[in-house]
Amino acid sequence: MRSKFSSPQLAQRALTGDLPAVARMLSRAEAGGQEARAGLDVIFRHTGKAHIVGITGVPGSGKSTLVSKLAQTIRATGRKVGIIAVDPSSPFSGGSILGDRIRMSDLVNDPGVFIRSMATRGALGGLARGTLDAVDILDAAGYAVVMIETVGVGQDEVDVVRASHTTVVVSAPGLGDDIQAIKAGVLEIADIHVVSKCDRPDANKTIADLKTMMAMGLSLARTSSWGVPVLATSSFNDQGIVELMDAIDAHRAALESSGAMETRRRSIAERRMLKAAEEILRTVFERHRTGKIGVLTDRITARDITPHAAAKELLHEIHLETDKELFNTMETEG
Amino acid sequence: MRSKFSSPQLAQRALTGDLPAVARMLSRAEAGGQEARAGLDVIFRHTGKAHIVGITGVPGSGKSTLVSKLAQTIRATGRKVGIIAVDPSSPFSGGSILGDRIRMSDLVNDPGVFIRSMATRGALGGLARGTLDAVDILDAAGYAVVMIETVGVGQDEVDVVRASHTTVVVSAPGLGDDIQAIKAGVLEIADIHVVSKCDRPDANKTIADLKTMMAMGLSLARTSSWGVPVLATSSFNDQGIVELMDAIDAHRAALESSGAMETRRRSIAERRMLKAAEEILRTVFERHRTGKIGVLTDRITARDITPHAAAKELLHEIHLETDKELFNTMETEG
Repeated sequence: MRSKFSSPQLAQRALTGDLPAVARMLSRAEAGGQEARAGLDVIFRHTGKAHIVGITGVPGSGKSTLVSKLAQTIRATGRKVGIIAVDPSSPFSGGSILGDRIRMSDLVNDPGVFIRSMATRGALGGLARGTLDAVDILDAAGYAVVMIETVGVGQDEVDVVRASHTTVVVSAPGLGDDIQAIKAGVLEIADIHVVSKCDRPDANKTIADLKTMMAMGLSLARTSSWGVPVLATSSFNDQGIVELMDAIDAHRAALESSGAMETRRRSIAERRMLKAAEEILRTVFERHRTGKIGVLTDRITARDITPHAAAKELLHEIHLETDKELFNTMETEG
Repeated sequence: MRSKFSSPQLAQRALTGDLPAVARMLSRAEAGGQEARAGLDVIFRHTGKAHIVGITGVPGSGKSTLVSKLAQTIRATGRKVGIIAVDPSSPFSGGSILGDRIRMSDLVNDPGVFIRSMATRGALGGLARGTLDAVDILDAAGYAVVMIETVGVGQDEVDVVRASHTTVVVSAPGLGDDIQAIKAGVLEIADIHVVSKCDRPDANKTIADLKTMMAMGLSLARTSSWGVPVLATSSFNDQGIVELMDAIDAHRAALESSGAMETRRRSIAERRMLKAAEEILRTVFERHRTGKIGVLTDRITARDITPHAAAKELLHEIHLETDKELFNTMETEG
């Protein structure tokens, strides 16, 4: 599996937009480890240009088809589009019905659209981290819009959505009486609501329900200068897709002009730092589970030490480990 | 709100089973902080005797009434019972319909039953930690069985269930076609399945569905020597409650005789250590969010440092903080 290139070399190639290099860098990032990290460090310094759009909705909401149509529409404006599918039911992830697959093929043959599905979550909660690394790679490789498609249930998925600049929540008529955004736990993070399949006669009720909730102030728009729109789309007859693209672009413009983009970038940076720290914590924990940490576990079960006191010892151990890693890095560089 | 007693003094009183002391210790633990921690340290050394039983099921599964009936049945064997309701829809938490409240009142007037509902989750994911502190207090105060009632959705709730010795998953007929344990994400952690409301004619289908899933091996019993039973109960005519108590007791006996209890105690200790470490991490993060951590955030948004490298700095900061805290503790004691 190992190519002749080191991760930093691969990263340099990916920065030029070289497709095989992008694909291989994504695979290495997903596999993780110290070597991939060195490449991601190179990548990270070239990020910050892409518009990161989270698209979420319960299974059956038609969001995959919408993502596909939206990607084609954005492509028509000359921009490169990256798609990262975290939703295991997404046709981009291989979980599709045949019709979806055929519809996707237009995208697959366009080198200006890069589609990547993320493998199932790692044991150490690696989903969110891996997804954001993938976003970084596409961002640095020149994809102007990077869409993250998720089902929006579970903490990991919500974390991914929160890492985006613009969040689109997709609901569909006929999936039950509950407002699906509430069910998926994503109502309060929507910047744009979309009711898909608006060619269906029962779409008006879903649209009305969502608008009522907006009017009740139940959605806390993250930007005060932005009124969360409720858009109707139909992938069947291409209705509302251009309007959705325009709303996404307008949301970015509103973020930039109000200064809210700065706040959002800081909040994303904070989350990523905290997530990375938790991942280091869990990695060191696993590494010494049967060793030093095992001794702490023994002491807890013997009621000799509290979990809180053991946690302090664990954090001390992590400090020693990260120092060692820092030292190793310096050695390699020296 | 502050009583004349320090938390360690209050803890000592709670150890004797003194009800007002138990109640006040619970309140202090829920509020959190360094002073409460000192009392919890005293408490923790006297834990490990109670049988911790997690009872989970979707809203409407009738688990609150079942918990109430079960508590009365266990009381009849002379054991003290503690109930911690994490489920916001539980009548124990005040979210009840009138009928439930009246049914509860038998319990409320029995000093051998202690009922506590946990407040909504804290900003720092404090739900799981606070709940386990509360379990510790009831355990140390001599409650032989401590039941934790949760809705079993969300990572925090699942963490709470995983901290129990025996997990009972309650399903009810008529709540839809899906197996509710799958919906709640708790199928694989059930030690005992209960189908409540078995006086209803459609209960047999729910029982059959669950038994089919068991036969398909979709439930990974955490103890190989234990076959996960599917029990039918009816709180309406007191059917199956004694059988459920017997199954809970039998599960504990199976854990002890197979040596699996030791494994489970270690796994609980590990989780608590890791959760406590994550809580310290988040606390220090919040404390310096606009200070030292804010500088790191600035450097990430400026692409001057990666989130991973910033996380290492954050862990270094946490190390310094916990050292300071340890020093403060020593000073107080010296």
